[in-house]
Amino acid sequence: MLLLDLRSGEEIAAVEVRYPHGVIDSSLPEGGSELVPDTALQDPGDYLEVLYRGIPDALAAGGVSPEEVIGLGIDFTSCTVLPVTKDGTPLCRMDEWSTRPHAWVKLWKHHAAQPVADRLNDVATARNEGFLSRYGGRLSSEWYFPKLIQVWLEDRAVYDAMYAFVEATDWVVWHLTGSLLRASCSAGYKACWSATEGLPTQAFFEAAYPGFPDPSEKLGTQFAPPGHRAGFLRADVAARLGLGPHVAVAVGNVDSFVSVAGAGVQEAGVFVTVVGTSICDLVIDRSEIRMPGITGVVENGILPGYFGYEAGQAAVGDMFAWFGDRLLSLDRAAGASGSNWYAELERGAASIQPGESGLVALDWWNGNRTILGDADLSGVIAGLTLATTPTEIYRALLESVAFGERRIVENFVEHGVAITEVVACGGIAERSDLMMQLLADVTKLPVTIPASSQIPARGAALFGGVAAGSERGGFDDVETAVATLKPATQRSFEPSPLDTSTCIPSSARSMTLSAGITSSGSTA
Amino acid sequence: MLLLDLRSGEEIAAVEVRYPHGVIDSSLPEGGSELVPDTALQDPGDYLEVLYRGIPDALAAGGVSPEEVIGLGIDFTSCTVLPVTKDGTPLCRMDEWSTRPHAWVKLWKHHAAQPVADRLNDVATARNEGFLSRYGGRLSSEWYFPKLIQVWLEDRAVYDAMYAFVEATDWVVWHLTGSLLRASCSAGYKACWSATEGLPTQAFFEAAYPGFPDPSEKLGTQFAPPGHRAGFLRADVAARLGLGPHVAVAVGNVDSFVSVAGAGVQEAGVFVTVVGTSICDLVIDRSEIRMPGITGVVENGILPGYFGYEAGQAAVGDMFAWFGDRLLSLDRAAGASGSNWYAELERGAASIQPGESGLVALDWWNGNRTILGDADLSGVIAGLTLATTPTEIYRALLESVAFGERRIVENFVEHGVAITEVVACGGIAERSDLMMQLLADVTKLPVTIPASSQIPARGAALFGGVAAGSERGGFDDVETAVATLKPATQRSFEPSPLDTSTCIPSSARSMTLSAGITSSGSTA
Repeated sequence: MLLLDLRSGEEIAAVEVRYPHGVIDSSLPEGGSELVPDTALQDPGDYLEVLYRGIPDALAAGGVSPEEVIGLGIDFTSCTVLPVTKDGTPLCRMDEWSTRPHAWVKLWKHHAAQPVADRLNDVATARNEGFLSRYGGRLSSEWYFPKLIQVWLEDRAVYDAMYAFVEATDWVVWHLTGSLLRASCSAGYKACWSATEGLPTQAFFEAAYPGFPDPSEKLGTQFAPPGHRAGFLRADVAARLGLGPHVAVAVGNVDSFVSVAGAGVQEAGVFVTVVGTSICDLVIDRSEIRMPGITGVVENGILPGYFGYEAGQAAVGDMFAWFGDRLLSLDRAAGASGSNWYAELERGAASIQPGESGLVALDWWNGNRTILGDADLSGVIAGLTLATTPTEIYRALLESVAFGERRIVENFVEHGVAITEVVACGGIAERSDLMMQLLADVTKLPVTIPASSQIPARGAALFGGVAAGSERGGFDDVETAVATLKPATQRSFEPSPLDTSTCIPSSARSMTLSAGITSSGSTA
Repeated sequence: MLLLDLRSGEEIAAVEVRYPHGVIDSSLPEGGSELVPDTALQDPGDYLEVLYRGIPDALAAGGVSPEEVIGLGIDFTSCTVLPVTKDGTPLCRMDEWSTRPHAWVKLWKHHAAQPVADRLNDVATARNEGFLSRYGGRLSSEWYFPKLIQVWLEDRAVYDAMYAFVEATDWVVWHLTGSLLRASCSAGYKACWSATEGLPTQAFFEAAYPGFPDPSEKLGTQFAPPGHRAGFLRADVAARLGLGPHVAVAVGNVDSFVSVAGAGVQEAGVFVTVVGTSICDLVIDRSEIRMPGITGVVENGILPGYFGYEAGQAAVGDMFAWFGDRLLSLDRAAGASGSNWYAELERGAASIQPGESGLVALDWWNGNRTILGDADLSGVIAGLTLATTPTEIYRALLESVAFGERRIVENFVEHGVAITEVVACGGIAERSDLMMQLLADVTKLPVTIPASSQIPARGAALFGGVAAGSERGGFDDVETAVATLKPATQRSFEPSPLDTSTCIPSSARSMTLSAGITSSGSTA
């Protein structure tokens, strides 16, 4: 929860509220049998609780009065979807459905629909479906239709009872405003929708799953770009939040994608990389190029008027944590002078020269997202000797991430999307100078780190300001908002004049794990 | 130091005496400048001190009177060589030479002669020298002529001053008996000598190092097979050792090779593997087959009347120790119920099924000895995921050793040396049931572990008994000695009916690191 000053760009207050139920993956809160493997659910009540607790807390922490808040922007994980009735009630909150797993929110990392995704990919490939080329040639089991079809196959009553199967970000906006308006970002990246081509045809779905109804039935057909005003706060909701009734609410956003605006980027050629447990890479361009090796390209998916490209790596911070926590069993708090093991290892790794240890790693600890798109791939460490140290391996892991990024950059360039610089945000960008220097050295591009640890929330808040409009103290267009609120540069890294041509590239892609809801405000 | 009963085969006493100076690799005991990298020296005075302390201790520990001892056998690391005067005085023990590094013993693992070995290999290959085919096509920098030529190149005065450059095993026998008789084993495996073909020609050495003298000048030309009597103890030496003067001394032995006799093996088709810090594999056969992928084949090198084949892997126990000690920093003593980390990891690793973890390792942590013979190769772990555990990696390392052994066995079989069973000894054979079961499963051969932790010393002692002859209570021939003293079987492992065909083979070769001197005795 971030309270952002739309004039100065100052981050007035940041509040974190944890979901009471977290991730539901063993049994439902209402009881019932054990959930099947790869199930990952959430309780939509948690989302509202976070809003109703966090917004008043943020106002209090920032010393901001309710009338100073003019807009709200939400960003959310995606594809995180739930079945709802026509009035927006989640089925899982109704007594008659609450013990059925398919009535609950399917979190982005719910992977139990993999067989459906496999089938859709096989049929789409066999039919040479054109929409596939917007997604690097493959759909993910994490996306909308695999999840929806899983419900249709396994609990037809839930399928029939739902009025819509909506992204959580859209559902929250619906709750706040009283009207349903879906985001083009999640529809484009996760539900195979395109502004110009619409959805995959019913004939395709019929070929894969005979009898499956019109794909737009539960998804809808109208989608709005980022910054579009979904409406104003409902009076009763405003009262509960401690806000005034004339607060504009922007259409929902997806967490990683909103980082582009949050980082102040609105130029083609800038490679925005969100480096956390995994990496999400984002690039905007005026033209659409269908290419392999990306997660997707969506018009208006990131900024209005641009095609937004997504790529990424599946294990980054997760891989480093595996090394220190799971393999070495290092004590996070027990370094010299109170620093943690990350800092200890990084200090040592920084003094090792490129190629000095002879180690090469492939970072596929969680499969490869892009450019190979193969979740079954796994990691490699080569060059091990009796003299190899943990510090050397740690550096090799950092290098493997940098080479994964380089391969993704090369893929864009090879297909006609020029890349001239890198803007990095996320926890590891903030924390690891060495990772950032390696990223600059290996990609041979300058790397800039914005001075904010709330980049996605800044993006969501910024779109809240656009939804409010200039007459209320916000912005009339996204371009002005991004330019006005661009964060300062905290650190920057120039490529060293190193020869890295002898190293082996690797690659991967990811979704960030963070799930946050963000409020925006302007001091009047 | 082992005292062996030649009637019963009972190991009466075993005594360990450490070398006071250990390995000299930074500066000489006499001072002087820092030693160059890859230098590894020893002090020959240590060898005598071990004898003069250890033999009386072993007699006392065994409660054996001096007159009961009839023979002595020595086994030693090789190629461990020293320059000596005509009366057998080591140059390094003389004031005028003691500050010169090349006057000292070059230990087997002295690697500073690598450039010489490279040059000899290049020239031998270019000249298509026939002797190369006895050594799998490559000479090692650890061997005799690279070490001798290093002295000739770098300290000509030492070269000129030495009467002979002798294996430590031969030097100790010379000290004990007063006469120099060299072993065919070390000459064959380490100095490119063959009973039928002699040494590489002077023309070869001239082509590689113009001006290098007759290669037999410092090596000698007469070599005796294992069990040959080198002489009897000198009276003054016998007195100092607390033994009688009629103790026969066998020609010197090399540590790993003597394990074949020590394990009671004298049949073709038995793959004797000494599994310790590294692995030494030994096979005997009535015929000589020149093949790639071995360390060497030498007539009378292991047992009289046989061609002895050597192969091996360069990092085994060393690799396991790297994993637990260096990478994981495990406390050797701190397992549950007082066991060490080896036992802890092995318990977990034994419950993992083949292929279950998805991990595959290549065991080249110290390069590959055989069948590739490339010291620059390094280790690999593939199949790593966020769920990978230390125990799974440990099992993958064990499996990599088993697959290395399988590749070595296959190489013998492919070239016409049939292998029907495995006899394993050494520390890891004694300690690790899992390693032994994997060896059986992966090679698909039965594996037997003899009931002795003193296999090499038994072999040396056995040859001491042969040197003594039957009229003194020993043996008239090696065959009878090996049959009489064959140790019982401690454990045996049958191959499980597993399909291991999908795994990736690896390979390696080694010399054992242990340096021991062994005495043999018989109760009268």
